[in-house]
Amino acid sequence: MKVALFGAGRIGKVHAASIKMDPRSELVAVADVMTEAAEALAKEHGIPARGADEILADASVDAILIASSTNTHADLIAAGVKAGKAVFCEKPIDLDLSRALEIRKITANHDKPIMMGFNRRFDPNFAQVKAALEGGEIGKPTMLSVTSFDPAPPPVSYIKVSGGLFRDMMIHDFDMCSFLFGLPETVMAHGSCLIDPEIGAAGDIDTGVVVLTYSDGRIATICNSRQAPYGYDQRVEVLGADGTLAAENEIENTVVKSTAAGVVSAKPVFFFLERYTRAYAIEWSAFVDAVIEGAPVPAGVQDGVNALALAEAANRSLAEGRPVAVTTDMTGG
Amino acid sequence: MKVALFGAGRIGKVHAASIKMDPRSELVAVADVMTEAAEALAKEHGIPARGADEILADASVDAILIASSTNTHADLIAAGVKAGKAVFCEKPIDLDLSRALEIRKITANHDKPIMMGFNRRFDPNFAQVKAALEGGEIGKPTMLSVTSFDPAPPPVSYIKVSGGLFRDMMIHDFDMCSFLFGLPETVMAHGSCLIDPEIGAAGDIDTGVVVLTYSDGRIATICNSRQAPYGYDQRVEVLGADGTLAAENEIENTVVKSTAAGVVSAKPVFFFLERYTRAYAIEWSAFVDAVIEGAPVPAGVQDGVNALALAEAANRSLAEGRPVAVTTDMTGG
Amino acid sequence: MKVALFGAGRIGKVHAASIKMDPRSELVAVADVMTEAAEALAKEHGIPARGADEILADASVDAILIASSTNTHADLIAAGVKAGKAVFCEKPIDLDLSRALEIRKITANHDKPIMMGFNRRFDPNFAQVKAALEGGEIGKPTMLSVTSFDPAPPPVSYIKVSGGLFRDMMIHDFDMCSFLFGLPETVMAHGSCLIDPEIGAAGDIDTGVVVLTYSDGRIATICNSRQAPYGYDQRVEVLGADGTLAAENEIENTVVKSTAAGVVSAKPVFFFLERYTRAYAIEWSAFVDAVIEGAPVPAGVQDGVNALALAEAANRSLAEGRPVAVTTDMTGG
Amino acid sequence: MKVALFGAGRIGKVHAASIKMDPRSELVAVADVMTEAAEALAKEHGIPARGADEILADASVDAILIASSTNTHADLIAAGVKAGKAVFCEKPIDLDLSRALEIRKITANHDKPIMMGFNRRFDPNFAQVKAALEGGEIGKPTMLSVTSFDPAPPPVSYIKVSGGLFRDMMIHDFDMCSFLFGLPETVMAHGSCLIDPEIGAAGDIDTGVVVLTYSDGRIATICNSRQAPYGYDQRVEVLGADGTLAAENEIENTVVKSTAAGVVSAKPVFFFLERYTRAYAIEWSAFVDAVIEGAPVPAGVQDGVNALALAEAANRSLAEGRPVAVTTDMTGG
Repeated sequence: MKVALFGAGRIGKVHAASIKMDPRSELVAVADVMTEAAEALAKEHGIPARGADEILADASVDAILIASSTNTHADLIAAGVKAGKAVFCEKPIDLDLSRALEIRKITANHDKPIMMGFNRRFDPNFAQVKAALEGGEIGKPTMLSVTSFDPAPPPVSYIKVSGGLFRDMMIHDFDMCSFLFGLPETVMAHGSCLIDPEIGAAGDIDTGVVVLTYSDGRIATICNSRQAPYGYDQRVEVLGADGTLAAENEIENTVVKSTAAGVVSAKPVFFFLERYTRAYAIEWSAFVDAVIEGAPVPAGVQDGVNALALAEAANRSLAEGRPVAVTTDMTGG
Repeated sequence: MKVALFGAGRIGKVHAASIKMDPRSELVAVADVMTEAAEALAKEHGIPARGADEILADASVDAILIASSTNTHADLIAAGVKAGKAVFCEKPIDLDLSRALEIRKITANHDKPIMMGFNRRFDPNFAQVKAALEGGEIGKPTMLSVTSFDPAPPPVSYIKVSGGLFRDMMIHDFDMCSFLFGLPETVMAHGSCLIDPEIGAAGDIDTGVVVLTYSDGRIATICNSRQAPYGYDQRVEVLGADGTLAAENEIENTVVKSTAAGVVSAKPVFFFLERYTRAYAIEWSAFVDAVIEGAPVPAGVQDGVNALALAEAANRSLAEGRPVAVTTDMTGG
Repeated sequence: MKVALFGAGRIGKVHAASIKMDPRSELVAVADVMTEAAEALAKEHGIPARGADEILADASVDAILIASSTNTHADLIAAGVKAGKAVFCEKPIDLDLSRALEIRKITANHDKPIMMGFNRRFDPNFAQVKAALEGGEIGKPTMLSVTSFDPAPPPVSYIKVSGGLFRDMMIHDFDMCSFLFGLPETVMAHGSCLIDPEIGAAGDIDTGVVVLTYSDGRIATICNSRQAPYGYDQRVEVLGADGTLAAENEIENTVVKSTAAGVVSAKPVFFFLERYTRAYAIEWSAFVDAVIEGAPVPAGVQDGVNALALAEAANRSLAEGRPVAVTTDMTGG
Repeated sequence: MKVALFGAGRIGKVHAASIKMDPRSELVAVADVMTEAAEALAKEHGIPARGADEILADASVDAILIASSTNTHADLIAAGVKAGKAVFCEKPIDLDLSRALEIRKITANHDKPIMMGFNRRFDPNFAQVKAALEGGEIGKPTMLSVTSFDPAPPPVSYIKVSGGLFRDMMIHDFDMCSFLFGLPETVMAHGSCLIDPEIGAAGDIDTGVVVLTYSDGRIATICNSRQAPYGYDQRVEVLGADGTLAAENEIENTVVKSTAAGVVSAKPVFFFLERYTRAYAIEWSAFVDAVIEGAPVPAGVQDGVNALALAEAANRSLAEGRPVAVTTDMTGG
């Protein structure tokens, strides 16, 4: 299976490594508007850097992997579909829900897999929570709690184009809730700017709590912070009738030092590249499974739409100070 | 310091043991409308069971400890004040906020300590969180998360007179938030009946999530469940600019068993009597400090009013499906 | 059951509290050659300080608790037996094995319980290991590892009269091995002075490793150090055919602090008084059970002899640099 | 750097993956007397399977990686040296110490790196212990404890040719002691057959405890078992004047399940391939560093000799029931 990569930045490099690691997929070309970055990555992998149109027109390319900037996602998905390619696209589909709903229409009848890069679904810890839940290990679930803190806020220049905390950061956690609990009925959002006043000046929040309620009474809570100086804090906890499942952080090493100053363990691994290294590789193999073996796509366009719809609902809830219902108009469902 | 105990039930016995453990206080009498219970406890401690009026009229009694049923609390506080006693009263002051506000007026000028039994403030783990917060160990706090699950729901007969989950169970967690973060500005409540349909039929919920927001942007989340079959789950976690403080559960023993079936640790200690044994003793000594040495009362009538005001706000929020502002009318502040 | 206490020092006070806590036993007198200490403790408990002979002659005293200095233990046991009392004695019986064997003879036909204070058998964690072992939870055991470090070495003046690390400190661990694995066949000792050269100058070691082998092939290892600056390190680990049981340390509180400096947990509780508070109370109740209800004595004179025999074998092994067989001559068995 | 691989078995495949992962090294050929295995691995990597002599004669091959059966190690090292190659060889050099000493002579003046595959030195957890020790984080070290249990014993057919527990299994732990504490002065071994009587019938033990003493008084203890049904148990703990460093197991995932049956965590990762995946990759990069950049070899022939000398001393100690001195004759030092 021959793969062309769009985007030669940080996350593009991660995906290039995943493509290489699965013996069933081969990276054959890379495209990036930053030609220097494209050339460097191409050289490292002994492949050509090519133009986007040229790649899309090349019938030998089976699949495209979209890891370019967010504002190019929707157009590239559409182009990939038109060119008859299998498509793997980093989240989100777009910052604009209506554009995502358009993409949903365009892709509805495509006969090749289209997969959204919700990498956390492939984290072995969260996947184990999902498996245990589905295996009935804690009985009927009642509450879900997602903790998701970044080690440090991004530059304010990034914040300004990010779409805001709910669409940029919490979107992963919305998808985690959908993954574990399905689509909620209402969204209630709370948020503040407590870390960096410039984030507030840019119209965004850096601290957020969102409560999702489900039609059958289940309740999910998401806590986000742009800053946890001890590292990337990524935990999930589910309470059910028979007990709880809690996925704790992965830590840098297992060494515990005990001295008069206390008992010190290693910190959580630093950020998403470290925490989700394995998840990215497993995610890619799931896409290859879908393309080559016809396995079901574990996170599709509808999942992308859902996450975005929750983010928009959260934005509205925060603005209006009240719970917002999630409707099928929002999710295209 | 001579103490008379009102209430010879489960929690009365706990307090009797605490009184005995502090060499500065002496249990001299016990009163209970269930005369059999009063006689039994009196016999065990070699003291007389006496009538309430008789005790209040006895000038040799320095302090009264109110551990009788909730609907007697307010009257006994008032009577104790009138009789010039120091008063220790189990929470809540009353199920009715307006009655609690009356008690606040009545007690305002009392010259002896009046202390409310918010025992969790004296749990060494939560006290350590408070101390570390005040010591600036994690910098400026931003988010607080309180997890509080009972091992199993009480009988529905109890639920019916309990005042409901927010006033009966979450009231401790409201006080924990006040203890760690102060009085919030708004309360948003979510709740469902997911464990026992009879609880729902009785008009109550068994699963609740409440979000408190503070005027400076801090956010606190409380998750309550009436059922966690592995034991009493009592945790607190605070995020600050420099890190987090997390108070984990206390467990039955430290033995870890590793077999082919997995790595098994002991469960959390079963319920509040086991978890808060030390807290009850420390709490009592704090009251004795206040009475004998004039130390500040660590949890007074205003704290009782505040917790009740938050519970009432949560009830209104749940009923109306919107955030409710906490006003000074509510808290008497 | 009326109890007289011999020894008003640190450990005597602990036992006085335990006697008070069990409603079936009553402390009626205290004796100590340091009359000031005896008077102080007596006053605190509202009982008389009396002479040893007087106490022994008092027929109303049912039991004596020997918590005086080691060199008085054997004589007091003998006197207690002669006076027809039940006897609880702190370990060791004596520093001299032959004297312990004499005591064994003297006490052989006594019709009242004689119990040695091997408190660690009553620690809920180690007791849980024992119960799980006996319950077959890890199958046939093969290896045992005992870690036992003090927070800081005692003064050299104490070292000089202590009988040495094996008889003073490791004697508890020898008993733990006997408790969990029974009496071994050989003892091989290694030891060094690595912490305080004055301990070496006094002819003792401060760091010791002893390996015990059993006739059926099981192997136990004990590691001792006089200094672990993070607190009292008391752990036991057993490997069996089906898995391991590991009793970890008890810690000061459950708070975990995560900052850029690392993830910091509380230290183990400081020393034996903190770690074994509960064990001392449970131990005392077991003695009361034996005296009042005829329950079996959980740690008797033979256990005291065994621990001492292992300590002497370890001393010989260290001196001669070879494994030493444990014979029935040594243990009186 | 062009690399030829000797040995296409389980560990050969692991190394092939590591070679591929470091962009500075290229796998160019594979040799195995099992031609089918060689062909399969060669095909997977798109390289030729070649004869050993042909590879050694090929000047374009910079380095050989010896992962064939133990009895070929010494001859292949010698041949590699003669052919002027850099050599990476799996442990042990040979089961016979005198042969290892010969290899030491033969390799003494080789001008290319020769590295022994003591993979555990590259485990990030043990490496962190080493770094913290060298950084003085726990002060002067006094005791070392190495726990090393396999999940299940190998077939008895393997045991018969393995060289015995000390040379086959504990050799890694001997090297760990050397890595952390240097070369000891004496070795005292204890061992039994407690898991599988056929192992005993084959003249070997399956349960072993070895104590190493150092000239400055430090003491190290190694516990080995061929069977720990919960997985691969690989821990190291060091006590120093200021505290301890403990490297705990890596576990399968971070999910903790709490139910009425207890609190269950994931097991340690299953066996060496899972536990040391990262270590193998880091180890290989260290060899590439040595070959390409002249970095020091982190585990050389002398380290292989030392580990073997300790294993032989342990065998003699076990046979003779006494401590055995480790001499420079043994180690070639």
